[in-house]
Order: sequence, then structure tokens, then C-alpha cells
Amino acid sequence: MAYTVSPLASPFPVLPDIAGATPHAVRAGYKDWGRCDLTYVTLDEGTTVAGVFTRNLCCSSEVELGRANITQGHARALVVNAGNSNAFTGYRGREAVEQIMDQVAAHLGCAREQVFVSSTGVIGVPLPKDKAREGVAKALLAEPCSWKEAANTIATTDTFAKGATATAMIGDTKVTISAIIKGSGMIAPDMATMLGYIFTDAAVEPAFLQQCLSAANERTFSCITVDSDTSTSDTVLAFATGKAGNTPLASFESAGADAFAAAIHDVCLQLSHLVVRDGEGAQKFIAVSVTGAVSDESARKVGMAIANSPLVKTAIAGEDANWGRVVMAVGKAGEPADRDRLSIGFGGTWAAREGLPLADYDEAPVAAHLKGQDISIEVDLGLGDGAATVWTCDLTHGYISINADYRS
Amino acid sequence: MAYTVSPLASPFPVLPDIAGATPHAVRAGYKDWGRCDLTYVTLDEGTTVAGVFTRNLCCSSEVELGRANITQGHARALVVNAGNSNAFTGYRGREAVEQIMDQVAAHLGCAREQVFVSSTGVIGVPLPKDKAREGVAKALLAEPCSWKEAANTIATTDTFAKGATATAMIGDTKVTISAIIKGSGMIAPDMATMLGYIFTDAAVEPAFLQQCLSAANERTFSCITVDSDTSTSDTVLAFATGKAGNTPLASFESAGADAFAAAIHDVCLQLSHLVVRDGEGAQKFIAVSVTGAVSDESARKVGMAIANSPLVKTAIAGEDANWGRVVMAVGKAGEPADRDRLSIGFGGTWAAREGLPLADYDEAPVAAHLKGQDISIEVDLGLGDGAATVWTCDLTHGYISINADYRS
Repeated sequence: MAYTVSPLASPFPVLPDIAGATPHAVRAGYKDWGRCDLTYVTLDEGTTVAGVFTRNLCCSSEVELGRANITQGHARALVVNAGNSNAFTGYRGREAVEQIMDQVAAHLGCAREQVFVSSTGVIGVPLPKDKAREGVAKALLAEPCSWKEAANTIATTDTFAKGATATAMIGDTKVTISAIIKGSGMIAPDMATMLGYIFTDAAVEPAFLQQCLSAANERTFSCITVDSDTSTSDTVLAFATGKAGNTPLASFESAGADAFAAAIHDVCLQLSHLVVRDGEGAQKFIAVSVTGAVSDESARKVGMAIANSPLVKTAIAGEDANWGRVVMAVGKAGEPADRDRLSIGFGGTWAAREGLPLADYDEAPVAAHLKGQDISIEVDLGLGDGAATVWTCDLTHGYISINADYRS
Repeated sequence: MAYTVSPLASPFPVLPDIAGATPHAVRAGYKDWGRCDLTYVTLDEGTTVAGVFTRNLCCSSEVELGRANITQGHARALVVNAGNSNAFTGYRGREAVEQIMDQVAAHLGCAREQVFVSSTGVIGVPLPKDKAREGVAKALLAEPCSWKEAANTIATTDTFAKGATATAMIGDTKVTISAIIKGSGMIAPDMATMLGYIFTDAAVEPAFLQQCLSAANERTFSCITVDSDTSTSDTVLAFATGKAGNTPLASFESAGADAFAAAIHDVCLQLSHLVVRDGEGAQKFIAVSVTGAVSDESARKVGMAIANSPLVKTAIAGEDANWGRVVMAVGKAGEPADRDRLSIGFGGTWAAREGLPLADYDEAPVAAHLKGQDISIEVDLGLGDGAATVWTCDLTHGYISINADYRS
């Protein structure tokens, strides 16, 4: 890739194999590039599936079909196309997705609803059916690849491969989660398209898997923002092969369910942070912690208003403890807030307490904190017990260069 | 001012005198600068007033008191402080505003509720009472100044002075409107603070003046955005001195009411566009026209989602007809939209119709349009009769330089 690696990049972790989930990577040639661009993961019979999808109303056919297919709860394969998002391509785009579902289902002898397809890349160009057909044909015969190869193959404008892992004990059985994700903001003419895939050998009923994923999503993927823009293709899928042999988890009543849910949350948190760390032009990773809100959801909305404020994000880029901009962002969130109870801090040092700038405010520790790469902003609304943390990156010349200087 | 004049700047128009409204400009010295920074406009007895204020919940005392004072419907004076927004300053800030109200009211022999105060500039520092007292004392004795001087005096980070005028016939009586505004986005550590003041010699009952201003606001000030951030001090006030001698307008039943309302709308439209034309780093003025929405308000929300999208704004900066980003912004607005009915164009040329890229799309006229300074984006949702136009500017390196490179 031609992109400079993000200064916030993390090394790819050692991702354990997951029994029953086997990745493959081939080159379909969706773009004029030499790299693999079609990822194919086979899933053994009995694999359950859950998913969360973009709320963007102009979503792709992949999202529409994925959302429909998830309801039957089982999966046998995942196909991810990179280089073409197939979004805004009407019936022709939909036909290409259905062709892939049929081709894989025929090969595996499964229902087509058990084949999940994602696409990421250029918008408005129908996924070429001939390239997809040949690519899938190659994939069906390919040798397995590593999770890192799979992570590189689903990527488009990412500047580093992203993966995460966790384990949990279910009774005496250790279960493992390995996961990959792509997403870094958007580069013309591509769409951001956050695509995340979580694989575990745990045995989990589909409804409970969905419950775990949805709950984790609320506190992780729904709490990150790079530029406030929402892709038409955002998708996170979780697959549970059941090969670990634990007693299947059916609800939070099941033994080990809490540990499993915590591990899913942990992996989602890692993945979501990796996306922010590859935010376009990002130089700093910012955590915004809001406490004292009337509810957790209210705290999240206030946090997102701060994290999406161009003025807050440019202030952090400029290493400027501009708490006035944070006040502004709190106020525009539209959530319950009282100017005279509001407190704002950076890196654990309060700059303003209960509506007034601190008389003895010592800017030195704050200035030192803002020179670092990992920045925290603390906001206490002083109203209730609601709390949330959201994550974003700063807004820099790099973002403008990537998105304005580049011509599609 | 040290700021480079916006390439989109308009020359200051010839603003007619308004009988009964007399501007003065003096130097209170709120900042260490040589220029005038306190504007004082006296209003003859019988002047009615209306106002619209920021929805930001962390608003300044000026906004709180202005909102309360507007209810009695009459005004005798306006005081605008530049260089200190007095926002987030608690009871000390409030006392400073009340002191100004009392000082002016004592001099004019009017109720303090008839004295309107605005402040713009640095946040978190209480307006210094001594400087305010001396400044107001000077203003009470000052010679009148021109509207252009007043426009320069209310400005902070603006790169050019902004004014607008219009006339209307009420029966046989010609009434005149002269108006000034400041605002250009925000520069650390200042707040954007759009402050607009409209003066007319028409005789207008307060309730009808409010009706005209609120209606105009919905289609003008509420339809502009520079960076999606909302100031804690935004205020637009309209004053009607009644000196033209027309039969007072009491409602849309009054003869000439339509013409007057149209003139108020015209002035608000001019003023709102001037603010966008001074948007930080702006190189292009962008009109986003949304048609076919389920309602006008829905169209406005879709338009604002597009106008606030960093990806759309950087694409325009890059002169890139990236309609995929417009699709994304439509979808994330959360308003009713159907991907397969959506049409998108630039400068009057459709790039996509009813959910599909145009097969015979000729990019040449679009490319030529995007090279200009005045850009239009057309979106048809294909659902209903709702329509709205909103205005913004592009997002450039200039915005980042102003807001990140500068340190407070």
C-alpha cells in the first residue's frame, strides 16, 4: 500500500487458530493491483452467527442480505471482497452478491443464507460478476492462509493489519477468540467501511451470541468515531464454531456466560481502538470519558459530540488545552447539561470545576499530557450516575491531504 | 486584524441610516488592541425587539438574559462587547452583564430589561467590570458612527466587515432595513459567536417581528454551517423603531406584512451567506439543495448532514465530484431515504439517478463547475415534496492551520 503507516499503529498480535474456521486468500483482481483481494473463510457445520450492521439508510446489498440472513442463525462461509464496495449499484450489485452466495452454497452443499458476503472499496461500480466468479472458484480450491494474511486481504486503505484475541473459561473448557478488522476512515473514492470478523471455537446459541455482540457493540464500535461519517457498509460478524466442546451457552444463566461475554467485549474493544489508531491523518488517540450524566446513553451522546467536534479535534492536534471548545461541544449535544455544574479536565487534571475555570489551574501537567500520543479528556456533568467513554483521533493536515488533495 | 481576507469576501454595502437607531463605537480595551471593541446602539422610545438565540445548553449569561428580556418586547439600547465572550464565567460573568444593563438604563431612564447585551471573544474569563464600566461611560457620550464602523467593532476573527440591507413598501410607506453581522467559525481560544443585528424604521408589533425573524431564521441562519460546531453565544436581534410612520404591522393580515417579512428574510439570507463566506479556511461557497424529501424539515436535516460531512467538504475542496460521499451523508442523516430513488448532481448535472450511476455521465461540465468558487450540490430523494437549501463552505488546510497550528 502507498499509505504511510499510522504513527499510532499496533503490531499484529499472534492470533491462535480457531478449530472449525479456516481462512483463505486469493486474488480476484477487483482492482489493478497485485495483492490478494478476496478472503474466504470456511466454517464447519454447526457454526452459529451474529452480526451488527451500519445504520446508514443507503446501505449496500451486502448489508441488506447479511441482515436478512443472520436471522436463521447459522453460517458455513464468509466471503470478503476488497477494492469494490458494491454500494449504490442497484439490482446489478445485488445480483453479484447473490451469485457469490449461490456459488459457495453449491460447493459446500449448504443453504445460501449461510453464506455471508461483505465488500469494501470503490462505490457506485457494480461488483464485476466475472471477476467474482473466478475469484470464488479459486478460493474454493485454495490452501488455508494465516489470520494475518486474511487481515491484509480484507484491508483497502488501512495502513496496518489489525487483529485481536482473547480467551475465556467456560466451566473447565478454555475457549478462544481470534478476530480481524479493517477500517481507517475513508479515502476517495472509497468508503470507510469498517468490516470486522470475530471467530471463536466456543459453542454458543445464536441468540446469545447476538446478545453478547450487540452489548459489546454498544460500548465499543458505537463509541468510536474518526470523522463522524458513517459508512454504507459497516459490518461486524461473530462466528462460533462450537469445536471447543463446551456446553453450549444459551443465556447469561449458562455457566461461563459472563466470562465469554467479557472476552467478546474485550476483543471488540481492541478492534475498535485499532480502527481509531488508523484514523486518517491521526497523530493522537483520544479517550473522552463522560461521567455524571443522567444516563449512560446520554453520556455517550455527549462524548460523541465532543469526539466529533472539529474544533476539539483540531485543538488536540495543536496540543492546546482548549476546554472552552469542550464546553461548546457539551452544550451542542442537546443532552441534559448544566453549565454551572460542568467540570472539564485533561489527563486527569481539572481545568474547570462546576462551571468556573479553576483559579489555581496549573497548566504544566496538562501541557505535558497533550504532548503525548494518548490523550484523555474528562467531563463531569454533575447531574447523575450515567457514564461512558468514547474514542477518537485528532483532526490534522493529514486528514485534509488524504481526502481533499487526492482526486478520484 | 492579522487574518488573510477570505477569497469569498463581499464588499461592505452602502447601509442606509435607520431613523431612531444610532450606532456608536468606542474602545473599552477588552483586549490589548488599538481598535474599538464596544458597540453601543441607541434606540428611540417605542422600538420593538425580537430575537433568536443559540440552542447550545451551555449558553452565556448574555444569551440567558437576552432571552428573558425579549419577552417584554421593547428595546432602548444594544451593547456589544468584542474580545471577551464572557461565556462559562458563572455568577461573575452575569454580574458584569447586569452592571452594563443598569448603567445604560440609568442613563436613558428606561427599564433595564430594555438594554440588550452581547459579548464575543475569549471564553472562561469574566468580562472585566471596570473596563466595561469605563467603556460604557465613554459610549454614552460618544458621537454616532457609521454602520460599517459598527460592523468592524462587533467583529473579532472576521476577515471582512459584513452588512446587508433591503426595503419594503408598507402601503405607501417605504421602510428600510440595515443589518450587520459577525462570525466566521472559531479561532482558538475564541468562540465562533455569530452575532447579528437587524434595524428597521418600520413600525412592527413585537409578536409579529418575532414571527418574521423566527420564520426567516428557519430558512437562513439555521441552514448554514461552517464546521457543525454551535457557539455558546449565537444571537440575532431585530429592532423596529417605527419611525417610518407606517400603520404598525401586527400580523400577516396587515397590509404590507408579506413584503416586510420577505425583506427580513432577504436580509437574513444575505447575512447568513456572509458568515459562510468568511468560514475559516473557506475557498468555496457550497449550496446544498435537497428536494423530494418527506417534509421541508426532513430535507433540511439531510442537507445539513451533507453540509457537515468532512468527507463531502474535503471532496469539494479537492474539486472532486465524489457523489459516493453524498450518498453516504444522505444515509447517515437518519431521515427517510430510499437508496434506489436517490439522485445526485453537481452544478445542475446529474451524476446518479434513481439509485444508479448514469451510464452516459459526462464529467466534463461537473469538473468545470467544481473548479469555480460557487458550488451547488443537488440531491433528489424521490419521496415527496419536501425541499430545503443549506449552505456551507469547503474544509481545507486553512481550517486546520487556523484551529490546530494556533496555540491559545
